[in-house]
Amino acid sequence: MGNQAADRLRRLREEMERHGVDLYVIPTSDFHGSEYVGEHFKTREYVTGFTGSAGTAVVLKEEAGLWTDGRYFIQAKAQLDGSGVTLYRMEEEGVPSVKEFIEEKLRPGGCLGFDGRTVSAKEGEAYRRIAEEKKASLCTKEDLVGNIWEGRPPVPKEPFFILEEAYSGCGTKEKLSAVRQKMKEAKADAHILASLYDIAWLLNVRGGDISHVPVVLSFLVITEQECIWFVREQSITEAQRAYLEENHVSTMPYGEIYSYVSSMRSKAVLYDEKSVNFRILKSLADSVKKIKRENPSGLLKAVKNPVEIENTIAAHIKDGVAFTKFMFWLKTNIGKIPMTEISASDYLEKQRRAQENFLDLSFDTICAYGANAAMMHYAATPESNARLEPEGFLLVDSGGHYLEGTTDITRTIALGLVSEEMRKHFTAVLRANLNLSAAKFLYGCSGLNLDILAREPLWEMGIDYKCGTGHGVGHILNVHEGPNSFRWKQREDGEDLAVLEEGMVTTDEPGVYIEGAYGIRIENELVCRRAEKNEYGQFMCFETITYAPVDLDAVDADGMTGRERELLNRYHKKVYETLSPYLDEEENDWLKEYTRAI
Amino acid sequence: MGNQAADRLRRLREEMERHGVDLYVIPTSDFHGSEYVGEHFKTREYVTGFTGSAGTAVVLKEEAGLWTDGRYFIQAKAQLDGSGVTLYRMEEEGVPSVKEFIEEKLRPGGCLGFDGRTVSAKEGEAYRRIAEEKKASLCTKEDLVGNIWEGRPPVPKEPFFILEEAYSGCGTKEKLSAVRQKMKEAKADAHILASLYDIAWLLNVRGGDISHVPVVLSFLVITEQECIWFVREQSITEAQRAYLEENHVSTMPYGEIYSYVSSMRSKAVLYDEKSVNFRILKSLADSVKKIKRENPSGLLKAVKNPVEIENTIAAHIKDGVAFTKFMFWLKTNIGKIPMTEISASDYLEKQRRAQENFLDLSFDTICAYGANAAMMHYAATPESNARLEPEGFLLVDSGGHYLEGTTDITRTIALGLVSEEMRKHFTAVLRANLNLSAAKFLYGCSGLNLDILAREPLWEMGIDYKCGTGHGVGHILNVHEGPNSFRWKQREDGEDLAVLEEGMVTTDEPGVYIEGAYGIRIENELVCRRAEKNEYGQFMCFETITYAPVDLDAVDADGMTGRERELLNRYHKKVYETLSPYLDEEENDWLKEYTRAI
Repeated sequence: MGNQAADRLRRLREEMERHGVDLYVIPTSDFHGSEYVGEHFKTREYVTGFTGSAGTAVVLKEEAGLWTDGRYFIQAKAQLDGSGVTLYRMEEEGVPSVKEFIEEKLRPGGCLGFDGRTVSAKEGEAYRRIAEEKKASLCTKEDLVGNIWEGRPPVPKEPFFILEEAYSGCGTKEKLSAVRQKMKEAKADAHILASLYDIAWLLNVRGGDISHVPVVLSFLVITEQECIWFVREQSITEAQRAYLEENHVSTMPYGEIYSYVSSMRSKAVLYDEKSVNFRILKSLADSVKKIKRENPSGLLKAVKNPVEIENTIAAHIKDGVAFTKFMFWLKTNIGKIPMTEISASDYLEKQRRAQENFLDLSFDTICAYGANAAMMHYAATPESNARLEPEGFLLVDSGGHYLEGTTDITRTIALGLVSEEMRKHFTAVLRANLNLSAAKFLYGCSGLNLDILAREPLWEMGIDYKCGTGHGVGHILNVHEGPNSFRWKQREDGEDLAVLEEGMVTTDEPGVYIEGAYGIRIENELVCRRAEKNEYGQFMCFETITYAPVDLDAVDADGMTGRERELLNRYHKKVYETLSPYLDEEENDWLKEYTRAI
Repeated sequence: MGNQAADRLRRLREEMERHGVDLYVIPTSDFHGSEYVGEHFKTREYVTGFTGSAGTAVVLKEEAGLWTDGRYFIQAKAQLDGSGVTLYRMEEEGVPSVKEFIEEKLRPGGCLGFDGRTVSAKEGEAYRRIAEEKKASLCTKEDLVGNIWEGRPPVPKEPFFILEEAYSGCGTKEKLSAVRQKMKEAKADAHILASLYDIAWLLNVRGGDISHVPVVLSFLVITEQECIWFVREQSITEAQRAYLEENHVSTMPYGEIYSYVSSMRSKAVLYDEKSVNFRILKSLADSVKKIKRENPSGLLKAVKNPVEIENTIAAHIKDGVAFTKFMFWLKTNIGKIPMTEISASDYLEKQRRAQENFLDLSFDTICAYGANAAMMHYAATPESNARLEPEGFLLVDSGGHYLEGTTDITRTIALGLVSEEMRKHFTAVLRANLNLSAAKFLYGCSGLNLDILAREPLWEMGIDYKCGTGHGVGHILNVHEGPNSFRWKQREDGEDLAVLEEGMVTTDEPGVYIEGAYGIRIENELVCRRAEKNEYGQFMCFETITYAPVDLDAVDADGMTGRERELLNRYHKKVYETLSPYLDEEENDWLKEYTRAI
């Protein structure tokens, strides 16, 4: 890996020299600010060799750096080895941010480059300001990595389909009308949407342009009268065209967004500077008033409607059946038949595919044995693929998209004996998970208020996990969705301060990661519900909608409070009652044992 | 009360008419944004009759309103009865804010008035913008309440003293140098300070110009070269003058701040818009760049130095001895000798005054029996003064200033039988208090992250307290101090997001308030300490520095977890060990019993 990266870096530097660029920024992004991106867009991975889902590379003549977050420190360190790219661990003490690094390294009067389509308006503006202060020029029209990328995968063109109202619970007309209402409140007469998730949600359309993220590569422009979808028009079937027309949505070719935007004569355009790209921003006439806001659709889609919730629960039951069959197979066959991370994960995928209305995995399954599980977002490769032995922990983080909804579940399974320390850590993670799920709180709380309920059992032991406790989950969209989340650190953009609303679905996934030894994570999804309303206000609570046993072989019941044991027993009772109708006798006997009260 | 208020309102309205003012705002403030104010400044109380420490009155020709927060709803309702002033419960659903009310009520082209010295620059600017939008004029140079106030108390002129370094732990020179460093970082060449707490802290001076808040009415202007104290110069003794000169502090008369500010030729002035008043802001030349920041001294003074902490602990031990003697007297004499709220509170004050280096109470003692305690900030008056009977709860919230430091403690004491529900609520409040005090957390957390540890035991029962869980405590200054606090609701100004730093002292005071029945609050002070530092970061924890028994007669041990009982037992053991050397045999026998392990 290292040598390949070194060669690509060399060629990129030649290209930089050709264009007079001193410093080139390569984010992990398509033209829409997507979290995961199609193969065509993986320029950062192509250059550095680091395959994680998040990271920014900065290349200079003499050096190159990669910034990524705590989930990927271990993986990035390994993958960057020998590449000549330095790993910068984001948010660690003394580590400069990408911007601080650019500020330090960009020479006065130099040239700062990036592909303006792959950088958000917000990031791009920040880079522009740095360049301005250094009296440096900007080069944002060239895709320098594209220029050197031999055999680059083509721009994705997967087929798409309309999600019927029985699944979406709300028609496009109604959704557009809600967005237009928000535009009106913001005094905007036009709205540019680049977020693929928001577009798919608004148009009730799903595709497959990003692996495991069923979206359609496109832009949307909404005005009071019009709604124009910039998309590959040739893929639209007649039935789809009829749905679009019925909802007063017209289309234009995907590539024409930039020229369209430059011709817009709206007075005030609302856009989300984190997903609309820098080139779009620069295409807007100076006379247009720029209203920077979160996309109104962001909050609307995060608050799942009753139909979406009911469907999502149905999806979780199917997913729970698949996972429980897998867990039964794993626990009863380990040590008897050969298994690896990949073969186990294939078996699990087979169980999911056997479920009705299964569409796709919701992300690459993380099936990580022993020390591999200490990497939060590990993906087994033929080289890393570990043999499973009847000892230690196997961490499986996986999920599926069904027509009904999307799931995301993690279980850590004892394949045999585990040490006292492992059991202690497993029990602490379980307590963390249960305590958050049982939270009762006044309306107005955000994940920032609640996060400590999960973290405290670990912090008490002087242990932390370097990521949020949970994220929102898209409905047959990106498995990671905002604005709801559980985390304790405030982000500068204030994004995670979203109040927890009835109908939001958020994961609850604390963990313990011991580098070189093991990883433990237990993840359930929680739907936010109303509890009583009284003179103190509206109380809220969660319903756990993930159904699969937590491995009792790894639980130290004495390390739990009575309330925690009761929470676990109540959960396990529900798991058994929910899943048993779909399991055979042998599986049911096993499940009964593994959901027994402790 | 009601008739008097009606008469004063009538006279104020005449005065408003005389000056052409349509709407007059009367905040609770002196010229320094102080929380508690001297008698001279109590204009809002004079007009409305409401005696609480927080509230804003708005007077129009036909109506008048008073806005106050949850601590005072019950009290304000009673005190405003018959006054013609409507109570607006702040932050309740559907209740307009002061600004929304003014926006609605101020007639276009009308005149909005307030005394510009009693309104912060921030508030004043907000009012100015409302007036501007309404094309209304502003009248801010008149003290209309002052014009009608017969027998107004004079401007306070209490003596003051220099706090020696053995108590302050840090000289004025060093403090000024730290502030100047922050000014430099903010690119400010001058700094106007109006906060009496910050000025007292910086100059190591203490006075008595606000009841129970040992500050000196003054302003301070700091430049790179100069430090000018605007104060009544005639009160300065020779020794004090020497200390000021040694620290390069010069003086000018208090009243000259406005003309001095208007003559300032600084390039950029740093000021806190929440304490510097509107008239000062308006006195600054337009050419001066205004740098709005929290006072740099705010965070510096909140992080207590080791000398301040050691002294504060010494103060808490003396205060704990006084309180425990009081509690012993109360528990052993109730029903045997006549007692009232006022006589009990007098007895407690006597115990405090008997302690060495006692200076003053740190606030008016709240000694509230039965239903009176449901009012969070109740102060007994000769009319309300309840007889104490051998039943129910007595809530005592009190504290002292000693030369060593300031205390704030609440205990709720069972005077006899209490109901099952009262015991259940008491135990929940105790659990709330203990769980927060035992928090272990990563550096970077604010009170916003931790608040739920206290609130959860109550929220579980569908109960809340309508205030923060705790506040910072000044060192021989205001008993309420920022920027540290425990609360779950984010304020718009982001003020309570201060990261908890080693050395900060914060109260931990959850409660249950049942209107018309009883109130329960248990309050200890916590000093923030460092715990271990490891690969996950710097862990932090609290040390409880309040020493007094929690009334075991009201505790339901079965309602607590094993850990909670252990926390209580450990605390009680420490209370006994700390206080017993200062108590007589009889008191010690009693304390031993009341600090027994449960």
